[in-house]
This record gives sequence, structure tokens and C-alpha cells, in this order.
Amino acid sequence: MNHNKLNTELALIGFGIIGFSILAILSSFISPAAADSSLTRATSYASFNEKGELVRPTGYREWVFIGAPLTPNDMNDGKAAFPEFHNVYIDPVSWSHWKKTGDFADGTLIVKELTNVGSKQAVSGNGYFQGEYTGLEAMVKSKQHVPDAPGNWGFFRFTMENSRDLHKSAMVQANENCSTCHQSNAAIDMVFTQYYPVLRAARAKGEAGTGGQ
Amino acid sequence: MNHNKLNTELALIGFGIIGFSILAILSSFISPAAADSSLTRATSYASFNEKGELVRPTGYREWVFIGAPLTPNDMNDGKAAFPEFHNVYIDPVSWSHWKKTGDFADGTLIVKELTNVGSKQAVSGNGYFQGEYTGLEAMVKSKQHVPDAPGNWGFFRFTMENSRDLHKSAMVQANENCSTCHQSNAAIDMVFTQYYPVLRAARAKGEAGTGGQ
Repeated sequence: MNHNKLNTELALIGFGIIGFSILAILSSFISPAAADSSLTRATSYASFNEKGELVRPTGYREWVFIGAPLTPNDMNDGKAAFPEFHNVYIDPVSWSHWKKTGDFADGTLIVKELTNVGSKQAVSGNGYFQGEYTGLEAMVKSKQHVPDAPGNWGFFRFTMENSRDLHKSAMVQANENCSTCHQSNAAIDMVFTQYYPVLRAARAKGEAGTGGQ
Repeated sequence: MNHNKLNTELALIGFGIIGFSILAILSSFISPAAADSSLTRATSYASFNEKGELVRPTGYREWVFIGAPLTPNDMNDGKAAFPEFHNVYIDPVSWSHWKKTGDFADGTLIVKELTNVGSKQAVSGNGYFQGEYTGLEAMVKSKQHVPDAPGNWGFFRFTMENSRDLHKSAMVQANENCSTCHQSNAAIDMVFTQYYPVLRAARAKGEAGTGGQ
């Protein structure tokens, strides 16, 4: 074996081993939003404390937005159940799973950030425009943490009454507060996909459902 | 030089060259949302064709959502200028820049996906609920591509009249169609940040503005 051939062979071996290691390490840092279906995360975005309460999620404004239902106070006798815009997001790993399979994976975390109406008139026309954040709610699908809940979906409320601060953690809501209505009225697996075009367009469609294709 | 030493040296050289190459290649695939400030992208998300037209962006439903103004037809004599929900997104690299500096970087791409009203009544109350996608518009800040535009912002429209298909590319709009109004009425650098709580909360605030902190 001459040195030139040895050089080539060692370089190829080096490429194989080292390249694979670097790929494996870097994969763990790649944002789930960009991760393809071969990359999976070990844990859910949902984190529970020692009391079994859901810890308030953070960073969700960088997750995947799925819809903004609006039930304004002035269309509900001043007493909207969900005042007023609800900006709804799904965690990026569960989004990737939805794109691939059309199902909500165990561990899925969906958050709903409540936002008041800041204005009803702008240069673009009459309507409803978002103002300030007023609350945060979440639903988590977890066999481990809510084994007895319908569909294994637990519902959580971080909103404080009469304050824009948020609770640090929240215990699961009683079924009659959330589950019952979601079970009876939501289109797919207790999620109101009928109001979320983002979810409908991407369901088991992969990249074709991410906009502009 | 014995073969063992040669092995080691070649492996190290292999690690250096190949590792660096893989890092460089992978960096280009890492989601900008996850990228820290040490990773920068060579080019803008905005791509222009040989005619100088903006190529229709794709994948924007995985970018950062910044707001959902609503100017419904039924509140505008059936002739809303922007029917009806507009889901607005900023590209992830420009979002990172905004979080860090509070400015819109050269290259910033903001898209507005038009969505009709699918329903006005749900179990959650009376209101407005998103239906189907009906159009797509964009604004790009680019010294290179729109050097003479006010603020270096170009405005583009991919929406087709009487169709839900989208144009593949779009030429920049005349100033009087978009720029003039944005210049006079938008709060920060021709962007209507007054209606985008996501942008307001994160302006130069870093991770503290990404929700839940």
C-alpha cells in the first residue's frame, strides 16, 4: 500500500466517522421547526413540576402559529369567555409530527395567548386589531401526566384574574371546564382544527402545507 | 513516520477539513429561529428573479407570526381593502435581528397571508373565525433590490384576482399603492407595529420577549 492510497482511504474513513459524529451532535441543536422527520426529540415541550402541575411554557411566540380566533367582548355582551383574540401556537416538534402523520403526538403542547382588542379602526379599514397580552392557556396531550383525561388531553390556565401577570404553573382543569366542550365540538382529536387553516393545510402534507407552495 | 502516527495525523487533518465543511453546510440548514447570534446567513430570505421580481416566498407558516389584523368585508361595506384576516409573519433571521437590536435589518421579509372569514359563531362565542387562504402579499427591505423606494421597502402582491392560486413572482408595486400609506401611518420604519404585540414585546428585548417570561 503506498502512502497516496493510504491517505485517500484514511480520509474516507475519517469522513465517515467524524462526519457522522458531527451530524449527530449538531442534529440535537437544530431547531425542531427545521428538523426533518428523521430527527426526534427525547422529551415533550411540556414540563411538569413535582406537584404534577404544568410549568408555564416560554418562547412560544417562536413556535408555529396555527390560528387567531376572535371572540370580542363587544360581540358577546361584554362577557367573552375567551377575551378577545386568542393567538394559538403548537410546539415545533408536534408540528413536524402533524405534518408527517396528520395526528397529534403524545406530548403535544398547544398554547393560546389571550390578547385584547387595541383598536377597531385603522387606515386599512374598520375591524379588530390586537392590543396587549392578557392571559395564557394551554392544552397538553400526555398519557403519562393526564392518563385519565379524555383523549389524554389536559387543559391548563395561567391567566391571573385582574392582573396581566401569569401563574408560574397550573394544575389540570376539571373536565367540565374544558374537555367536555372540546370533546363535543372540536373537529379532530379535541382540537378546533375547523378554525385553524394552518393545521388543515399541512395535515399529513409535509412541506406542501407550509405556505406558498 | 510509522503508520500509527500517520493514522492519527491524517485523522486530525480529516477532522479539521471535513468537520469544518460539514459545519458550514449544516449551518445553512439550521432554522434561523434557533440560530444564535453567532450564526449569520449569507443571503436574505427574499429571492429575486432575473427580471427583478420577488419570487413567491414559501414555508412562511413556520416563520414567526407577528399579528392577525382583521378588516372583515361585513365591517367595510363588503369591500375590505385587505379581506379579511391578514396573518402576518417575519422571516426568522430578521426576527432575531429585531429581538437583538429593535431594527428591521436590510433583507427583512414580512409576508401577509390573506384568509377569509369561515364562521362568525362558535361554541366559544360570537366572533370571527378563519376560513380559507385567499391571497399573499409581502414587503422586503433591500438596498440592493429597491434602492430608490422609501425606507428601502418594496411591496409585492402575489394574490390573483378571482382565483386562490398565487403568482409565481411579483414586481414591486408603485409607491402610491402601498409605500405612501405605510410611510404616513405605520409606527416603526413603515411597519404597523402598533397592531403587532409580538413585535412590540420583543423589540430589543431578546428572549424576554418571546412569550411566557
